Amino acid sequence: MTAPLSEDDLIARFFAPIAGEGAFALKDDAACYAPPPGHDLVVTKDALVAGVHFFADDPPGAIAGKALRVNLSDLAAKGADPAGFLLALALPTDWRADWLEAFARGLGEDAARYNCPLLGGDTVKTPGPLTLSITAFGTTPAGAMVKRFAARPGDAIYVTGAIGDAALGLALRGDPPFAARLANVERAHLVDRYLLPRPRVAAATAMRDHARAGMDVSDGLVGDLEKMIRAGGVGARVDLSAIPLSDAARAAIGGEAALFEAAITGGDDYELLACLAPGRAGAFETAMRAAGVPLARIGEVVAGAGVVWRDADGAPRVFTRGAYQHF
Amino acid sequence: MTAPLSEDDLIARFFAPIAGEGAFALKDDAACYAPPPGHDLVVTKDALVAGVHFFADDPPGAIAGKALRVNLSDLAAKGADPAGFLLALALPTDWRADWLEAFARGLGEDAARYNCPLLGGDTVKTPGPLTLSITAFGTTPAGAMVKRFAARPGDAIYVTGAIGDAALGLALRGDPPFAARLANVERAHLVDRYLLPRPRVAAATAMRDHARAGMDVSDGLVGDLEKMIRAGGVGARVDLSAIPLSDAARAAIGGEAALFEAAITGGDDYELLACLAPGRAGAFETAMRAAGVPLARIGEVVAGAGVVWRDADGAPRVFTRGAYQHF
Repeated sequence: MTAPLSEDDLIARFFAPIAGEGAFALKDDAACYAPPPGHDLVVTKDALVAGVHFFADDPPGAIAGKALRVNLSDLAAKGADPAGFLLALALPTDWRADWLEAFARGLGEDAARYNCPLLGGDTVKTPGPLTLSITAFGTTPAGAMVKRFAARPGDAIYVTGAIGDAALGLALRGDPPFAARLANVERAHLVDRYLLPRPRVAAATAMRDHARAGMDVSDGLVGDLEKMIRAGGVGARVDLSAIPLSDAARAAIGGEAALFEAAITGGDDYELLACLAPGRAGAFETAMRAAGVPLARIGEVVAGAGVVWRDADGAPRVFTRGAYQHF
Repeated sequence: MTAPLSEDDLIARFFAPIAGEGAFALKDDAACYAPPPGHDLVVTKDALVAGVHFFADDPPGAIAGKALRVNLSDLAAKGADPAGFLLALALPTDWRADWLEAFARGLGEDAARYNCPLLGGDTVKTPGPLTLSITAFGTTPAGAMVKRFAARPGDAIYVTGAIGDAALGLALRGDPPFAARLANVERAHLVDRYLLPRPRVAAATAMRDHARAGMDVSDGLVGDLEKMIRAGGVGARVDLSAIPLSDAARAAIGGEAALFEAAITGGDDYELLACLAPGRAGAFETAMRAAGVPLARIGEVVAGAGVVWRDADGAPRVFTRGAYQHF
């Protein structure tokens, strides 16, 4: 156990060193931020609760990183470049200085990695579980934010990266039968993808330059795509065989339909979904390739309502589970 | 009990009706905000936990109002006009639709009252107590944010409104002896001031036009003034007899030194402290009067360090209790 620190001491010791310009070393109640002229601010906020969104015994740096990264994923989907963030931290009564030090170190490393400085926040105590909320800001040129609800019939549907790694990594905590067919390196890959999202910050420019609609995949590909399509008042056809899987996910699934369904309906992918007007798909692919972001075309937007998920042989599949509900 | 709602249903039912422009009816993961040209953004974030910052059985509309108002108080102290806010809400598992409806109604009324629309947020479940975090934005003309740490020797120190009502109102929950000397209307006034802050939003223009340093009084006048003075690397002399008290607070204190100390060291005043350069004090008083904000001059900034609190007869007083620590 450690001597109790006041809130001011705690902020000065752990958080002031990672604060950005405009945060006044966290000695004020508010931060000042001047957006670049001709730019809009894009603002997002996510809350995470121990035992709901992460495990209380996850590494503290990974908890901090995840809290920031889930917000950066939202910004990337909207085509916004990170500009800064605020953190609200409700600490359980048994918090330890070494835990908080590792948490702040992880947060500071990610703030530097993603060029997204800490601008302020609040630290309080709670009789409940560790609870975090991050508000992240990004900027786009005026009017360039990518909306969720703008898909039109004829648009091509893309997804970045690989789907299902995090859901399978989470399942590995229960030591499921499929663990036996994975090499250590595959297990480690899947667990790591659950623990620490890789937000597609590098994709922001391609998204705002080309995508008509976009969102990040945080609650499962199936549920999130259905949300995006419903929000646009349109329908979609998706080829299940085109959904990108990592080698580790492919090995874990091993042809079991239930595991494939778990992979494409489970949460925490933090990849991006995008709808591209027919004339923009090529330029989008080129821009994503230049940004080093893997991209797969998985279907198309159609008139009507609902998403039809088709097997490799063209037969429709219905999933028993919709979007993963963190709530 | 009520049927479970999904997060999307809950947002559509309770929060979308109070969302502002740029929030896309909360159907997107992020909001878009374009600050007026030539303006800075001022950003603040406060977290509140049931059982720590409010009582779980406080009226839901008052809980919502308090969460927003403590942030608006920070903005006013910085000289910023409200522009919008985001809400993270961690709901205990036994939440009820009628509770949430009253919460959202109170929040919406305050958003309208203070011209500060809901722009987005996140709703999650928690196994712990109800936890809220609000991030509020305001705007000032470029460079006009009032800093906490800018006080200079010779500045006059002002405080708005009346101090101690909320601390005495909180103490009334324990049915203290002083309750016997209060009329019902006085009791009601003090309890109400604890329950629902009155942020000095009307004072923002006078603050940014005239004040050299400023902060809001949320953790007790004594501790907060000492913070502001220490942050400026200066000292101060304060006349205790000049600290403004309401009639109800005066009646509650009844000449008892311990109760006076409780009033000026207790939290939740949400008044403003300001340091004014000698040549600006008159204009500041005029502007505050025009804004309808009561104002008292309580002391002056001096060279050196520390705050000397003097009785009416000039004798220094030392307080056993520093700033109220919500943390």
